[in-house]
Amino acid sequence: MKSKHFSRALVALGFVLCSFAGVVAAQPTDPLPSWNDGKVKQAIITFVNKTTKSGSPDFVPREQRIATFDNDGTLWAEKPVYFQLLYAIDKVRQQAPRHPEWKAKEPFASILKGDSRKALAGGKPALMQLLAATHTGMSGDEFRQSVKQWLATARHPETHKHYTEMVYQPMLELLNYLRSNGYKTFIVSGGGIDFLRAFAEKTYGIPPEQVVGSSLKAKFELRDGKPVIIKLPEVNLIDDKAGKPVGIYQHIGRRPVFAAGNSDGDFEMLLWTTSGPGPRFGLLLHHTDAGREWAYDKDSPVGRLDQALSAAPRHGWTVIDMKKDWKTIFPWGNRSSAPTQ
Amino acid sequence: MKSKHFSRALVALGFVLCSFAGVVAAQPTDPLPSWNDGKVKQAIITFVNKTTKSGSPDFVPREQRIATFDNDGTLWAEKPVYFQLLYAIDKVRQQAPRHPEWKAKEPFASILKGDSRKALAGGKPALMQLLAATHTGMSGDEFRQSVKQWLATARHPETHKHYTEMVYQPMLELLNYLRSNGYKTFIVSGGGIDFLRAFAEKTYGIPPEQVVGSSLKAKFELRDGKPVIIKLPEVNLIDDKAGKPVGIYQHIGRRPVFAAGNSDGDFEMLLWTTSGPGPRFGLLLHHTDAGREWAYDKDSPVGRLDQALSAAPRHGWTVIDMKKDWKTIFPWGNRSSAPTQ
Repeated sequence: MKSKHFSRALVALGFVLCSFAGVVAAQPTDPLPSWNDGKVKQAIITFVNKTTKSGSPDFVPREQRIATFDNDGTLWAEKPVYFQLLYAIDKVRQQAPRHPEWKAKEPFASILKGDSRKALAGGKPALMQLLAATHTGMSGDEFRQSVKQWLATARHPETHKHYTEMVYQPMLELLNYLRSNGYKTFIVSGGGIDFLRAFAEKTYGIPPEQVVGSSLKAKFELRDGKPVIIKLPEVNLIDDKAGKPVGIYQHIGRRPVFAAGNSDGDFEMLLWTTSGPGPRFGLLLHHTDAGREWAYDKDSPVGRLDQALSAAPRHGWTVIDMKKDWKTIFPWGNRSSAPTQ
Repeated sequence: MKSKHFSRALVALGFVLCSFAGVVAAQPTDPLPSWNDGKVKQAIITFVNKTTKSGSPDFVPREQRIATFDNDGTLWAEKPVYFQLLYAIDKVRQQAPRHPEWKAKEPFASILKGDSRKALAGGKPALMQLLAATHTGMSGDEFRQSVKQWLATARHPETHKHYTEMVYQPMLELLNYLRSNGYKTFIVSGGGIDFLRAFAEKTYGIPPEQVVGSSLKAKFELRDGKPVIIKLPEVNLIDDKAGKPVGIYQHIGRRPVFAAGNSDGDFEMLLWTTSGPGPRFGLLLHHTDAGREWAYDKDSPVGRLDQALSAAPRHGWTVIDMKKDWKTIFPWGNRSSAPTQ
């Protein structure tokens, strides 16, 4: 027998043994262990199965399996305020000595007095303006280092955990579950794209090229003969509300098959996703758990959820009741169990 | 023996057999069969090996293996002019009856008279303006369908092939070779991102989310109750020259490890790439083959190559001499063998 035929026979025998072993060992394992059994968990699993099983009438070809996730309030917490706003506030305080004019200029003046409500009132666009003011002229690398350093040292005012620990364990499992079934996971956030890229790969397994967010303009130049990318004080994209489908269109170029969010800022992304032909899934997190996390919706200045929640039934979106549907919140426990120092 | 242990033993035996088969069958195969043996081919293979071999001092972790490719003149031909310009010209002619004012307005007037030089003189920005004028108000889906239809029917004025056949066989092999070694291949082109996304996945194996190009602004709206993305007549990004590192920064968020181009429009992308720390590779295609393709460099209005070619030695960029280094040009042959009708 030619060596080529002999080796092929060996491979065939090898595969037969591996398959047999697979059948013998197969025991169903729970892909979402931190999710309580129920309609929500079942809907997700059913969707993943029907879109990935060969021969299924709802089979989605691998290259089309795009899943987009909001970040604030969907993958990590957003209380008392968006964490990136807390970063920007820290930077304002740090840079204040170099900017005496901020004492009389909003929103800097309020921030320096300890009142972040003015900065918050302007929403995501105001946040981008604040970042523009505090980071213009900085290189992309310098900015990313600044964020990494802040994330490594700063602590949540209530739980005292690092912000990268304020992530939702059930959502980490969902990301892994989707990826192990050939889905490409993206972040589509109103927060800053560069801020997110500083930690999304390590924290969520989502690489920079799969992060979509609000952005400032930038330019390429030589500084001391060395090429750098410099951040400019001009907004490029506000990736929030109707800006999310635009961010998806520009960065991804494909309509998602699965999208998850938690606020009215995600309404258009969910609508855009589930309006597409074929199988689509819209997932909405409803913050209902005052004890283990925070309970908020239509009256919250942060992560307001009103229109999207009312619209969910007629669009067939699946709504997570965080209190009922999740066994745990954060990887380390929940808000009521956090140490007081 | 527990069934779990038994199945594991089977898997182990299966793997041993498969590996043995691999050793028995292993014969070195040429990953770049359309490339002549020589310094260029060797440099590419050496780079891929050293960045992917476990334990190598130049090992690059998989998630950092980003390779960016220009399109016009690098992956497909660009003579007599950029193919997207030919698309835009066809659209101008098609839409002219609805725009009597174009008879007196440049660059439309010249185009309608059969002279595309004015449109060409403005470079990539002028091309984007032309596209803006001919496509504003169109939805993203309508635009993509329009491009697909044009690509399926239009023929190159000289070779009479479809434009998606005017691709470089050796570069298709390079894309496959990089991908089979864990590299993520991106297009970073001065051409339109939406134009590219209409064919890049099928033609190059590069999905829409890995295409970076020049873009117009867009907005999300409801038309007849249906959500659509509408193209706006405002330039978002010109992804050419110094715009390429910016496009890379916005869309990818990581500096490439490998970059390939063919003109001065790729100078900054190559400089940005090879200025990074660690192993980096810059590849420059020099169009030297008048017989089988086209020979052009510093005097060409299309794909001008001057500064980048002079700079290549001091930056350590590898320069392909298409006449010497390639066994073949297009998958179907070469320009001199194309039928005359």
